Amino acid sequence: MPRHVYFCKMRWSDMDAYGHVNNVVYLTFLEEARVDMFAPYAQHLQDHSPDGGFARGVVIAKHEISYLRPLVFRAEPVRVETWVTRIGVSSYTLGYEVRDEDVVYASAASVLVPYDVQAARPRRLRDAERAVLEPYLESV
Amino acid sequence: MPRHVYFCKMRWSDMDAYGHVNNVVYLTFLEEARVDMFAPYAQHLQDHSPDGGFARGVVIAKHEISYLRPLVFRAEPVRVETWVTRIGVSSYTLGYEVRDEDVVYASAASVLVPYDVQAARPRRLRDAERAVLEPYLESV
Amino acid sequence: MPRHVYFCKMRWSDMDAYGHVNNVVYLTFLEEARVDMFAPYAQHLQDHSPDGGFARGVVIAKHEISYLRPLVFRAEPVRVETWVTRIGVSSYTLGYEVRDEDVVYASAASVLVPYDVQAARPRRLRDAERAVLEPYLESV
Amino acid sequence: MPRHVYFCKMRWSDMDAYGHVNNVVYLTFLEEARVDMFAPYAQHLQDHSPDGGFARGVVIAKHEISYLRPLVFRAEPVRVETWVTRIGVSSYTLGYEVRDEDVVYASAASVLVPYDVQAARPRRLRDAERAVLEPYLESV
Repeated sequence: MPRHVYFCKMRWSDMDAYGHVNNVVYLTFLEEARVDMFAPYAQHLQDHSPDGGFARGVVIAKHEISYLRPLVFRAEPVRVETWVTRIGVSSYTLGYEVRDEDVVYASAASVLVPYDVQAARPRRLRDAERAVLEPYLESV
Repeated sequence: MPRHVYFCKMRWSDMDAYGHVNNVVYLTFLEEARVDMFAPYAQHLQDHSPDGGFARGVVIAKHEISYLRPLVFRAEPVRVETWVTRIGVSSYTLGYEVRDEDVVYASAASVLVPYDVQAARPRRLRDAERAVLEPYLESV
Repeated sequence: MPRHVYFCKMRWSDMDAYGHVNNVVYLTFLEEARVDMFAPYAQHLQDHSPDGGFARGVVIAKHEISYLRPLVFRAEPVRVETWVTRIGVSSYTLGYEVRDEDVVYASAASVLVPYDVQAARPRRLRDAERAVLEPYLESV
Repeated sequence: MPRHVYFCKMRWSDMDAYGHVNNVVYLTFLEEARVDMFAPYAQHLQDHSPDGGFARGVVIAKHEISYLRPLVFRAEPVRVETWVTRIGVSSYTLGYEVRDEDVVYASAASVLVPYDVQAARPRRLRDAERAVLEPYLESV
């Protein structure tokens, strides 16, 4: 199954006083990868979700991230691979690696929950959303 | 005339790889000082501005900032003094100093423009807004 | 056993386009709490750690964070409680809650690894470091 | 004279609660453009500057930025054009535009001061540094 690949540009100011990309910023890299991953489906999802679907109605329930090697600012982007590790009734889980060809800087997972913005409560995954996630499902 | 005094907490990650508070972050300190300065007037302004007044309808037209000394993270907040240097028909200017008792780290100025959010265009300052600004007016 | 309590000032720009504190920024709140927690021991640790001990030589191995309720910018700081959930041979784990008196916004845990900066590799916890951690140890 | 062109990737979290790129973040875009502009000369400058030259020894003395139009997050990068407007004895000034082909979002200027890191004081521009700046000099 394919992983979504996003080449994430670091910023010089992502580094902290230790001269490494600050651990918190990695989560922003994951956010950028998610935004990039679901952007092509925005129209499709909106057609099936009058409230915007994934475009607005998803909240982060949980992040887990393991830091394996320090990352230093450079001009070349770092590769963020994203895939789906679980599709539940009312949540799904993404897996990620922040990496270069031959080295993994961090591995992570996020639990995401579709959200009914109008009703202000979690909701079930819609079929159109499952259809977007399924091609990225990878048995761990 | 009184200056508004805001004690701004630095964050460790405000420092960049040079071990100083990154120059960009000072502008966030100014933003925090502005938010703190106008928060007490929010209700007053809203009563006189159905669209929220300063609470929403102000955009930054210009910033100028001079860096005088480097700032290093510490537990004690840094003092941001803010005052008004000009009240125009449809804009006003704030002056700032980021400082301790005896040292100035940066001095700055911002031009702010009241904005009609509905009509999506700049608008004139309202009397209720002038009344908030005038006590802070300082001849430079 | 006591928890370390840090009152963390939010910044207006911590909010993202959804009008909530961005999920990534919570990790910065945890960082601020850690910095505040260990600052008083800096001298003690330095006396027992020629390389700076916790002051420099600790890396994040892992974060886990669960988001329970959205947080909106306000003037009053949010309370970050931090304690120790595990003291290992060459790593330790912190627990956290980002909360007000009666509501928890997020709960989190971090695995931290003491690091020998000179040798560029993980090292064992020193006795002086254990002594700092032990009062905060809480059976989960 | 040529301007340096940098295509700057926005991040979703660059937007603030108003749904626009926060005014402070533009300064980070300028920082990214500067880093990109001088990176190719790093080796050349280092050969002529035992202390690292521009690579480390430059501090920001002043920023001026005028905001002309709001910027909303999108996948396509925004163009940052950078050029030199003044080369002095011990400082120089950069001009910038943050823009698309047909619209300017912000125009800005920065005064930069070469810095003797060892002696901890400003220093004169070296010939090797002037040689890097001159091709970008533009009469305003």
